[in-house]
Amino acid sequence: MYPILFERLFLKKTIRIILFLSLILSFQNSLSQNHPNLILTKQGVIDIKSQLGAIPIFDNTLDKIKKEVDANISEGSKVPIPKDMAGGYTHTQHKKNYNMMQNAGVLFQLLGDEKYAIFIRDMLMAYAKMYKSLPLHPQDKSYARGKLFWQCLNDANWLVYTSQAYDCIYDWLTDTETTYLNENLFKPFADFLSIESPQFFNRIHNHSTWGNVAVGMIGLVMDDNELVNRALYGLKEDNIDPNAKDNDGGFIKKQGQKVGFFANLDDPFSPNGYYTEGPYYQRYAMYPFMIFAQALNNKKPELKIFDYKDGILIKAVNALLNLTDEDGEFFPLNDAQKGMSYYSSSLVSALDIAYFYGSKDPALLSIAKEQNEVQLDETGLAVAKGLKDHLEKPFIKKSVELIDGENGDQGGVGILRYNKKDYTMALVIKYTSQGLSHGHYDKLSFSLYENGDEVLQDYGLARFVNIEQKNGGGYLKENKTWAKQTIAHNTIVQDQTSHFKGDFETGSQYHSIRYLFDASNPIFQILSAKENNAYPGTELQRTIAIVKEESFQKPYIIDVVKITSNATHQYDLPFYYFGQVISTNFKYEIPDVLTALGKDNGYQHLWKEASGISNGGTIEFTWLKNKKFYSITSATEQGDQLILARIGANDPEFNLRKDPVYIIRKTDSKSTVFVSIIEPHGSYSPVSESAKNTYSNIKDVKLFYNTENYTAFIMTYKFGIKKLFILSNNDASKETKHEINIDGKSYQWVGPYLFKTIK
Amino acid sequence: MYPILFERLFLKKTIRIILFLSLILSFQNSLSQNHPNLILTKQGVIDIKSQLGAIPIFDNTLDKIKKEVDANISEGSKVPIPKDMAGGYTHTQHKKNYNMMQNAGVLFQLLGDEKYAIFIRDMLMAYAKMYKSLPLHPQDKSYARGKLFWQCLNDANWLVYTSQAYDCIYDWLTDTETTYLNENLFKPFADFLSIESPQFFNRIHNHSTWGNVAVGMIGLVMDDNELVNRALYGLKEDNIDPNAKDNDGGFIKKQGQKVGFFANLDDPFSPNGYYTEGPYYQRYAMYPFMIFAQALNNKKPELKIFDYKDGILIKAVNALLNLTDEDGEFFPLNDAQKGMSYYSSSLVSALDIAYFYGSKDPALLSIAKEQNEVQLDETGLAVAKGLKDHLEKPFIKKSVELIDGENGDQGGVGILRYNKKDYTMALVIKYTSQGLSHGHYDKLSFSLYENGDEVLQDYGLARFVNIEQKNGGGYLKENKTWAKQTIAHNTIVQDQTSHFKGDFETGSQYHSIRYLFDASNPIFQILSAKENNAYPGTELQRTIAIVKEESFQKPYIIDVVKITSNATHQYDLPFYYFGQVISTNFKYEIPDVLTALGKDNGYQHLWKEASGISNGGTIEFTWLKNKKFYSITSATEQGDQLILARIGANDPEFNLRKDPVYIIRKTDSKSTVFVSIIEPHGSYSPVSESAKNTYSNIKDVKLFYNTENYTAFIMTYKFGIKKLFILSNNDASKETKHEINIDGKSYQWVGPYLFKTIK
Repeated sequence: MYPILFERLFLKKTIRIILFLSLILSFQNSLSQNHPNLILTKQGVIDIKSQLGAIPIFDNTLDKIKKEVDANISEGSKVPIPKDMAGGYTHTQHKKNYNMMQNAGVLFQLLGDEKYAIFIRDMLMAYAKMYKSLPLHPQDKSYARGKLFWQCLNDANWLVYTSQAYDCIYDWLTDTETTYLNENLFKPFADFLSIESPQFFNRIHNHSTWGNVAVGMIGLVMDDNELVNRALYGLKEDNIDPNAKDNDGGFIKKQGQKVGFFANLDDPFSPNGYYTEGPYYQRYAMYPFMIFAQALNNKKPELKIFDYKDGILIKAVNALLNLTDEDGEFFPLNDAQKGMSYYSSSLVSALDIAYFYGSKDPALLSIAKEQNEVQLDETGLAVAKGLKDHLEKPFIKKSVELIDGENGDQGGVGILRYNKKDYTMALVIKYTSQGLSHGHYDKLSFSLYENGDEVLQDYGLARFVNIEQKNGGGYLKENKTWAKQTIAHNTIVQDQTSHFKGDFETGSQYHSIRYLFDASNPIFQILSAKENNAYPGTELQRTIAIVKEESFQKPYIIDVVKITSNATHQYDLPFYYFGQVISTNFKYEIPDVLTALGKDNGYQHLWKEASGISNGGTIEFTWLKNKKFYSITSATEQGDQLILARIGANDPEFNLRKDPVYIIRKTDSKSTVFVSIIEPHGSYSPVSESAKNTYSNIKDVKLFYNTENYTAFIMTYKFGIKKLFILSNNDASKETKHEINIDGKSYQWVGPYLFKTIK
Repeated sequence: MYPILFERLFLKKTIRIILFLSLILSFQNSLSQNHPNLILTKQGVIDIKSQLGAIPIFDNTLDKIKKEVDANISEGSKVPIPKDMAGGYTHTQHKKNYNMMQNAGVLFQLLGDEKYAIFIRDMLMAYAKMYKSLPLHPQDKSYARGKLFWQCLNDANWLVYTSQAYDCIYDWLTDTETTYLNENLFKPFADFLSIESPQFFNRIHNHSTWGNVAVGMIGLVMDDNELVNRALYGLKEDNIDPNAKDNDGGFIKKQGQKVGFFANLDDPFSPNGYYTEGPYYQRYAMYPFMIFAQALNNKKPELKIFDYKDGILIKAVNALLNLTDEDGEFFPLNDAQKGMSYYSSSLVSALDIAYFYGSKDPALLSIAKEQNEVQLDETGLAVAKGLKDHLEKPFIKKSVELIDGENGDQGGVGILRYNKKDYTMALVIKYTSQGLSHGHYDKLSFSLYENGDEVLQDYGLARFVNIEQKNGGGYLKENKTWAKQTIAHNTIVQDQTSHFKGDFETGSQYHSIRYLFDASNPIFQILSAKENNAYPGTELQRTIAIVKEESFQKPYIIDVVKITSNATHQYDLPFYYFGQVISTNFKYEIPDVLTALGKDNGYQHLWKEASGISNGGTIEFTWLKNKKFYSITSATEQGDQLILARIGANDPEFNLRKDPVYIIRKTDSKSTVFVSIIEPHGSYSPVSESAKNTYSNIKDVKLFYNTENYTAFIMTYKFGIKKLFILSNNDASKETKHEINIDGKSYQWVGPYLFKTIK
């Protein structure tokens, strides 16, 4: 395939001698003549080799990877001409190639078997031969087409991984070889991803992070400072049209926006590490962020990258781990495929790097233990050793507020958790900024989990990532027409239109406002946030609390949505439950033919299965899912509509999940309040056929008082106790003394709310 | 509550002396004066006591039960006036009472603590005080109303369990007490269940089994031979109207039908232990069958009950265990609630009894190990000891045919299984008789499982057992309008009418015919059955094979339905898949409004979501469920309709699951053949986002030949190989030599089928 062997060996020997001499003569050469030095380092390799066979998880990971790479080498390498979309053959093969090369590089360094170096060299040569003459990828679905893949993003993935492989065999290659590869493959590749694709490279976006890091990594390997600086600070000129948008409808670039790797650390990360796109994309971006940081730390320690922005990278990993359910799966805020979790290889890597360069937090080790694999370098070795020495401590996911925005002043995500042995509840409430082009229009939405299972869901994205039959694995049109729309979420919709009319530009100008977050009392945790821009002229405030009463088997949830508007509107409050309707205390009609609930804004995707009208009393809705019962008990006004609907209308390719929803609708309302108690209760066993606690324990819920400054409701438990809740709407101070008179009675308290038993 | 203590103690002492004397004087008295002797025995108790603390599973079960009973005793006993339906308070309480009494009886015998005897006595006295004056239960939904419960069936449950408790304290009670209880509670109770409820007692049905056993058990305790004989042989006179039906639409009694316990062993059980109602009700009936057999064996060993009908009881337990999926859940044939499994307490009991009185089969121990509890008597002790001694061997569920009918000549259930490490496939094909009143109209239907998960489902019943909100936990009207109808199953429907027009009387006259069952070759297992009476004038034959080719990741399934009719009809072949449509190779239209697929026979419950027309070629349908891909690839004729539908239309109380179905419809057909290949393939990981093997490996399927005597098709794999399958339709002999000419080519083979690679 390439220069015959004896020639290479001869050259190699000569070069080694020259290398040795030059090392002695000049330490300045060390940067370029001392590979590996990107992720693996010379010293790191020595340390690791000395401990091979003694650190179980490290050894097991190495063994697993060795098996995969060996199998791949036996199959013979394939470098096909790019052709297919995601999920198709050429896409999958090129993706496999960069993974195999990266792993082979590690195996070469740790095991010293030349076959791995040969595998990488030959494959790189095959890419190099092809690269310069490659046109843009034939599939033209992306705003930034790649060459190996349909989008630059995947090309950048390739380079981030392949840079590491290249670094591992750099010293083993001849000068002729490295010169050839640099000139024919890597430099053109880096230029293509940056200079030739500014709309991809010069953004604040996870795509650009990958692009920046790809260019930076290969720049570090080739000791090309120009490339490294390009990566860190972006292209100086890009001529990007300020109105240009990407495939997801996001703007490419705001005017005057800083770009490059540092800018991508500055802007999307909040001070406590929340990444504005949401956890699914944070997970995706964490790998390039962390791996490049590790490389920079090795080669440019003077940048002190892990201290940057008060240690933002380490904080980001912690934030991300907190954005998971009991099973380690990320909460699917914004565009997010469900099931993605901290078992993802990018999180294995990010966690190991965070452990090693952070404070060696033993709580991270317990997650690493679950992951049961490590990154094959010094960071992974440290983690594996920590586990071998049983240093791990539980990673306890507590209630936490993750603020959004570069300065942390753009709302946030509130997570309320109730943890008990064998039972956990998690509530995720979103009051962030738009979240860039992957953002959904769902201010003040929430989702509910029990023991890691969804109870009230966020739909996530409409996409089958890497399943070729479904639009080449790319976003489906239903992502825009359904998944991003407000009605696809558990939050208020006014007049069947989405927040900000579903307009990205408008949505990007605003964020919700955090009003109150107090999780200090585990049996009464409360959060409140406001949104004043989603519907001009209408102010929304949602208050959610987890309440655990001794007399209740599980905690219940208070959900109060206060709406203040200057005009009359229709308001829908959906609850995306799962499973089977067990009972309602209202009558409903079912239609003979099913029609869609509306014409647009996502409503065209809902079949209306049933509807009823409230008589103005307490309305109860009970369902059964996963052998457990749940009820939503709500205060309503006469004429409120109660709608049972199901996703799936106008879905010509069966792209949507046919999940159900219960909607409380208020028509012709100006200012109003939705009050609901969401209550998990009881259980069912199909084996003993025993049904326990199948009824809600809430007898009634009544709005008691509602002014600009205060909102109050009263509820009665079925066993008789009455509870009053009052919220101060405009003063969340813990110190303020409040006093109000309702129906001739005076109520006094200190702090933002009152919750107490009354007679 | 009852005679003061010293009086009781004095009496007791006196009686003990008398007892002792009478024992010495006369061994004939031993039957009545030597309780317990029903399930627990005097000797058994001595044996058990000597080993307490040394047999882990036994001790753990005892401990668990002790905790439950102790908690119940602390709460105080409640014997409310009967009022509620299943799931309601009084129903649940009386059910709890008999369970607690039965357990308390065991605890009294094994632990010797009198508090348990007192608990039982006081509760029995409370029942006795109330019983004689109790009217029929106020809920009048049953064809045989009970007194404590809404149906006699539950009253019988009460007596079966309570008899055991009574036996445990019989000797401890005073004569006055036993006389009082016998006269005021137990004798009237037994008479009510039999003489006063002949429509309940004198049948072949699981209800009557409970009734017979209840009367028999209390008869044995009271030494009332008249009652025992009534139980064994039924009422001599009953005056049951031969046209009377029960709530499920089943006939009460065929004319001339034998009745009683023995008749219920004779008729519904086939020679290899299949129970004609199906596994869900077999599970329910197994407890009274086995517990009464144990009691009879103890008190009337001369009956040799465990040898009866060639050991039918032991065989029945084995058959039942074979009717479970990988997770131990029963295949939901006929009326059956999904999720019921061999973890049910009735199976714990049945298994222990079968182990003890059978051949001490070590394979049963491995199931007992999973159950992780035992019956607290000698049988459970034997099982627990077996486990302690590690005698268990795997219970390997092999492919098996369970024949139906008293003489095994009424069709059967075929189970084809493919077992490999970490992968199992199970196919369940039904070609039985009607299965009494719980039977569904689904001849030649099938369902498919992988690793215990449903791939193509049988809907099961439409009922939420013991969930009060859903019709008091009873059968829902959709059980009749949907679940029992043919279209609710994966089998052929002619002209949108159910088999036998859904008429119980007609259906009860017929059964399908077993044609071929050969599971001798694990990589080509085949089954074929015929149904000639479901639609007069039309003959149906279904042939199903599991095929494992080396080049395929998993086995695929051949499904051939041959239809021969004397008139033109429409034929529907539904496949009840789960999950998400991934792709089809046919175009389909989706409607703007959803309408039901038909007006009756179950079709009124299906929403038509999409439909397309075949161009006459191979039709492919691929879906994704549980991170796995599946395809059905079918030979079709031009004009065949392909329908995607979903359960849930005309379901005014949301009683149905909204599951999807794919239907292949042939219109205006006389004799025709459906040929489909059902193929599990590939996988998806939401963590690595890798999609493997997402396409079917079948390129095309073509009907090749179809005559009265032979049916043949050819399929081509995507990698080129062609396969020919020929079935001899009328000669299933393994020896017969066949030769046919098709298109000038001669094919020769021996046996019922040919499956080979061709050019």
